Amino acid sequence: MSIVMDAEALNVFLTRDFPQVAGSYRVEHADETRLVARLVTGDEHLRPGGTVSGPSMFALADLAIYCAILARIGPVALAVTTNASIDFMRKPVAGQDLLAECRLLKLGRVLAVAEALIFSDGQAEPVARCSMTYSIPPKPRDSSPL
Amino acid sequence: MSIVMDAEALNVFLTRDFPQVAGSYRVEHADETRLVARLVTGDEHLRPGGTVSGPSMFALADLAIYCAILARIGPVALAVTTNASIDFMRKPVAGQDLLAECRLLKLGRVLAVAEALIFSDGQAEPVARCSMTYSIPPKPRDSSPL
Amino acid sequence: MSIVMDAEALNVFLTRDFPQVAGSYRVEHADETRLVARLVTGDEHLRPGGTVSGPSMFALADLAIYCAILARIGPVALAVTTNASIDFMRKPVAGQDLLAECRLLKLGRVLAVAEALIFSDGQAEPVARCSMTYSIPPKPRDSSPL
Amino acid sequence: MSIVMDAEALNVFLTRDFPQVAGSYRVEHADETRLVARLVTGDEHLRPGGTVSGPSMFALADLAIYCAILARIGPVALAVTTNASIDFMRKPVAGQDLLAECRLLKLGRVLAVAEALIFSDGQAEPVARCSMTYSIPPKPRDSSPL
Repeated sequence: MSIVMDAEALNVFLTRDFPQVAGSYRVEHADETRLVARLVTGDEHLRPGGTVSGPSMFALADLAIYCAILARIGPVALAVTTNASIDFMRKPVAGQDLLAECRLLKLGRVLAVAEALIFSDGQAEPVARCSMTYSIPPKPRDSSPL
Repeated sequence: MSIVMDAEALNVFLTRDFPQVAGSYRVEHADETRLVARLVTGDEHLRPGGTVSGPSMFALADLAIYCAILARIGPVALAVTTNASIDFMRKPVAGQDLLAECRLLKLGRVLAVAEALIFSDGQAEPVARCSMTYSIPPKPRDSSPL
Repeated sequence: MSIVMDAEALNVFLTRDFPQVAGSYRVEHADETRLVARLVTGDEHLRPGGTVSGPSMFALADLAIYCAILARIGPVALAVTTNASIDFMRKPVAGQDLLAECRLLKLGRVLAVAEALIFSDGQAEPVARCSMTYSIPPKPRDSSPL
Repeated sequence: MSIVMDAEALNVFLTRDFPQVAGSYRVEHADETRLVARLVTGDEHLRPGGTVSGPSMFALADLAIYCAILARIGPVALAVTTNASIDFMRKPVAGQDLLAECRLLKLGRVLAVAEALIFSDGQAEPVARCSMTYSIPPKPRDSSPL
């Protein structure tokens, strides 16, 4: 149950393999049971009125859950999201960063399931919740395509 | 944030208004932040092989989340589920009761959102996770139909 | 893209392997692109007020989607639901059977995705929609457990 | 059941109220039963390998469903997504635009439900499916906040 990539290793991986998101999203904390990721909110994430857009919250949850899986299995760039369910519950606080608190619920041979709560930085009530399933690619010795 | 119905009051309500489920499902615990409900597993809940069926797990999550809302707003029989998302992650242990641990994430004027983890009694890893949205009927002075 | 089990073969399979549901649920139609299943509504499926319960609708969608997969790959009893998302949109008509119209969207090596609309028999507007993912077990020569 | 905004009116609305997305997303068709929206794929929507990112597909489905609601009720800028469920089923074709085909399943007083299939332009098999719930704000004479 120990992790193989910590927050620093995950951020190095994101910067190298996902340069287009690494400027806005970063991992703040990663341990055996919990990962926290931050969206540094910029104009490109906002809707009219100044709140963070749904797709930006989706992207934050997706990145947090992806990193929670990589923390345990290492830099498998080909793990892909197969399902996401998200509830938008409150309006984010205008101008604040968002934090995603993520927990891995299952890490199987072919599927991983995790959930995340998203908060406006400094607030106690979540703005959104999300659960996602990732498909984990077979190891190299498994030759058959997904 | 205090509750208006405790576990005992919720079970009395279920027995009176939902007699067809009250024999199998009961509330074990209810406080401000958390509700636990139990499915007393019987033959009618099983699939071939002896594990609890998906619809029985759905029913347990639905009942737990419904009761978590009633604990806060009282016996509003007309609150209805509008959305459910459920991930089945592990096979339940054959012959064991199931427990749903439920948390209310939002209680708004018209919508409530909650999530539940379902465990085989005595196991640490969840067999399923579920999130649901309930629509809360307008109070009597609001005359317009939903 | 042809089917390997038609409606009659699917009903024979259900009666033999799922006797506890085969009395209430049956396949009405199955072809390459579409499957229709019926819930013959009985007292055990009703909520107070006479409408069909959420878990019974979930069970109908689950059975319809399971059968839509079996129609294409044959009687693989071990295919299991891994995710379900359901929206309850209208109150079913009291005392009416329910029909699920199901469409398979993806049939991959390890995952299948399908969606279903549920109608009260004779009504044009759906009472619910559902999408589900099934995990398909590896063939016998794949020895590793899921 | 007639529409109050057609594709042209919807695009004018998007350009004025959502200038940050109107360059990439546009409505191609809108009638009583169906809306089609296009994502003009650019570098900012791509993941490593050249396929469109999950958040960009989420944004396309969200916009298509939002517009399918506006087509029926007019330019209500405050309708908000409350729930989304999305299945990613196939890899989009690199370098192709994406099309979302959307259908409104319920348009109630406070909630609307719709679903969308997303295709790589020119392909028959969908790359993703999505269902969403929108909360529709009360009309001005309803003074109470949601």
